[in-house]
Amino acid sequence: MRGAADLSLAYTPGVAAPCLAISRNPEDAYRYTGKGNLVGIISNGTAVLGLGNIGPLAAKPVMEGKAMLFKKCAGIDVFDIELSTERPEHFIEIVLALADTFGAINLEDIAAPDCFQIQDRLAEQLSIPIMHDDQSGTAVVACAAIENALRIQDKKICDVKLVCVGAGAAGIGILKLARAYFGLALEQIHLVDSRGLVTVDRLDLPTHKLPYAKPPVRDASLAEAVRGADVLIGVSGGGIVTPEMVASMAGKPVIMAMANPDPEIMPAAVHAVRPDAIVATGRSDLPNQVNNSVCFPYLFRAALDARATRFTHAMFAAAVAALAGLAEEPAPPELRKMYRKEAMEFGPEYILPKQDDPRLRGHMVPAIEAAWTPADAAA
Amino acid sequence: MRGAADLSLAYTPGVAAPCLAISRNPEDAYRYTGKGNLVGIISNGTAVLGLGNIGPLAAKPVMEGKAMLFKKCAGIDVFDIELSTERPEHFIEIVLALADTFGAINLEDIAAPDCFQIQDRLAEQLSIPIMHDDQSGTAVVACAAIENALRIQDKKICDVKLVCVGAGAAGIGILKLARAYFGLALEQIHLVDSRGLVTVDRLDLPTHKLPYAKPPVRDASLAEAVRGADVLIGVSGGGIVTPEMVASMAGKPVIMAMANPDPEIMPAAVHAVRPDAIVATGRSDLPNQVNNSVCFPYLFRAALDARATRFTHAMFAAAVAALAGLAEEPAPPELRKMYRKEAMEFGPEYILPKQDDPRLRGHMVPAIEAAWTPADAAA
Repeated sequence: MRGAADLSLAYTPGVAAPCLAISRNPEDAYRYTGKGNLVGIISNGTAVLGLGNIGPLAAKPVMEGKAMLFKKCAGIDVFDIELSTERPEHFIEIVLALADTFGAINLEDIAAPDCFQIQDRLAEQLSIPIMHDDQSGTAVVACAAIENALRIQDKKICDVKLVCVGAGAAGIGILKLARAYFGLALEQIHLVDSRGLVTVDRLDLPTHKLPYAKPPVRDASLAEAVRGADVLIGVSGGGIVTPEMVASMAGKPVIMAMANPDPEIMPAAVHAVRPDAIVATGRSDLPNQVNNSVCFPYLFRAALDARATRFTHAMFAAAVAALAGLAEEPAPPELRKMYRKEAMEFGPEYILPKQDDPRLRGHMVPAIEAAWTPADAAA
Repeated sequence: MRGAADLSLAYTPGVAAPCLAISRNPEDAYRYTGKGNLVGIISNGTAVLGLGNIGPLAAKPVMEGKAMLFKKCAGIDVFDIELSTERPEHFIEIVLALADTFGAINLEDIAAPDCFQIQDRLAEQLSIPIMHDDQSGTAVVACAAIENALRIQDKKICDVKLVCVGAGAAGIGILKLARAYFGLALEQIHLVDSRGLVTVDRLDLPTHKLPYAKPPVRDASLAEAVRGADVLIGVSGGGIVTPEMVASMAGKPVIMAMANPDPEIMPAAVHAVRPDAIVATGRSDLPNQVNNSVCFPYLFRAALDARATRFTHAMFAAAVAALAGLAEEPAPPELRKMYRKEAMEFGPEYILPKQDDPRLRGHMVPAIEAAWTPADAAA
C-alpha cells in the first residue's frame, strides 16, 4: 500500500464497494475479505498442555505457537482469542457472536467436561467448521498410530483389548473416533479415570463417560484393567504406568504414553520388560511422536478449501487413513539424513510421519478435501 | 521457523516456559507474547461508513482496511473482530471476556447511542486502553482542523457560534473534545439532529444530547440554527446544507462537511456564495480532508509504547495540538510535488497534514506518549 490513492482504496471511500457487495450477498465475504483463509484459535486456558488451568492470558503463547504452525504448514492466517470465562454457556454465546469473523474455528485447551458441550453445541449452531483440536486432532493422530502399530504387531483391531487411561478431551476424543473409524466395540474398551475403571455403579458418572461404563468389578485399579490389554492409551499424567503393568499386558502390546511433558511411562522402561512393545509418546526427542501438528493444519486447509460447513467423520477418517498411509511410504531423503535409519523406516520406531515431513500437506489435504461432500452440509 | 527443533520450541514442549512465567506474573504477557503490539478492532457493523447498519460480516472490509493502516502507519498488529450482536450489554460482556488477547482495543462503526454506553463502560472496566475511533479519532482531527481554520480566519474560539449537524458518534465526540480542548462553552454550541435544533422541550431526548439542549424556539430548522454561525460541523448526510444557509453564516466561516462519501455541501457550492469560507470534507480528492488515519495509528502506538491503561483527555489534547502544529510546518518536498502549491502551504486549502505525510508518526507519537503519566492510571 503506497500513497494517497492506495489509502483511498483500502480505506474510505474505496472500501464501501466490497461492504455493499457483502451486505447484498454474504458469500462475497469469501471473495473480498480474509475470512476464507482465517481461522480463530479460541481458548479459555482451562487445560493448557500438562499445566492445567492457568487462565486465558497465560495460554496465549500456546495459541501463538499454534498460529505459526497453521501459517507455516498450511498457509492459514490465524487470530488467537483468549477468553476470560469458565462458564460453557458464556463461552458458547461469545463464540457464536464472533464467528462471522472467521472461516473456521479451532477450539483449544478447554477442560473436560465443558469442552464436549462447547464443541457439540457450537458445531450444531455454526455454519462454519469448528473442531476442538484436543479432541479431534489428537484422535486422528492417535488412531493413525494405533492402526500402523497393530499392523506391525500383526494384530486385528477386532480382537484387541484396549485400555484408555484418562477420560478428558483427548481420551474421549480418541475413543469416539476409534469406535467410528475401526468399528471398535464398546466391549473392547476399558476406560480408566483418576478413580479407576469406569463402572456403572459409580453414581456420579458424567455423560461423556457413560457409554464406556462396565459392570461393577471387585478390583477397579489401573493395574487390574491393564492386565491382558493389547493397546494402552495414556492421556492422563506422567509416570502412572509401571513396568509391572506393562509386563501384565498381552504379547506384542501397543503403548501410547501421550502425557506431556512426561509420558505415563518412558519407552526404555517399557522395553526393559517388554522388548516386543511398540511405544509412542508426545515427545519430539523420542521415536513415534504423537503430535497434532501432523494433522490439524491440513484438516483446516482442506475444510477451508472445500468450503465445508462442518468437520465430518468422513473427513477425520480420511485424515487417519492418509496419515497412516504416508508412514508406510519411504520418507524423503532430507528427513532420513536427520534421524537414525530405524527411526525412518516403517516399523516399531516409525509408525507416524514426522511433524516436519514436507509431504504432509500435499498428501493430507486432497484426501481430506475429497471426503467432504456438499450433501454433508444438509445433514 | 525451520525444522523439528524450532517446532518444539514454538509449540509443545518449549512453549510451556512462557506460559508458566505469565501465569506467575501476568505482566510477562507483554514480554513473551504479541499482546503489547496487538490491537483488536471490534465492530458490530451497525454504523459503517455512510452505509448504516449493514451488519458485522459486511463491515469486515472496513476493519481489514483499517488494520492495514495500523500496520503501515504505526507497525501495529491487528485482529479485526466482527460481532453479531446489537445489544450493548452483550457487546460489553463479550469485549470484557476477550480483552486479555489485546494490548488495546479500537471500537469501530457502532451506532449511536449504544456506542456511548459501550465505550464508557468498557473504558471504566478494562485495564487496557480502549477508544471508539468514530468518536475520539474523528474528534481529534476535527478539532485540529477547527483550530487551524479559525487561526487562518483570525477568529477567537471564545467568540464563535458553532453549529453541529448530526448527533451521532462523531458529532457528540467532536463536541465533547471541543469543550475540553478549546474550553468551548455550552452556550456557543448548537446541536441539530434529524428533527432540528435540540431543545429542552423535546421530551424523549437521549442522555448524550441532553447537555446541548437549548430553550424552546419558534423555528428549530437547520437553516435558522446556522444563521450567523462561525463554524458549521456536518456529520450527518450528503447535501443537507444549502448555499442559502452558507450565505446566512457570519463572515469568514469555517465549514466542516464531513459526511461520506457525499459531503453536506460541496466546497465549490460554498465558495460560489462565500469565497472567504474555509471548507473541509471527508474526501481525499478535495482540499482539507478530515480523515482519522492521521491520528488513530499514532494514538494507539503512543498508548502501547507508554503502556497506558486508558486514553486520557491529555493524550487527545496532545494529539490535536501536534496535528494542528504539523500543518503549520513546511510540508516535505515529496508531498509538495504531488499537489498544487496552494494545497500544500498552510492556509485555507491546507489546514491539516495529508494522511500520507511521512512526518506524522515521528511528530505525533512522542507528543501523545508524553501526555500519559502513570498517575493517570490510578485516576
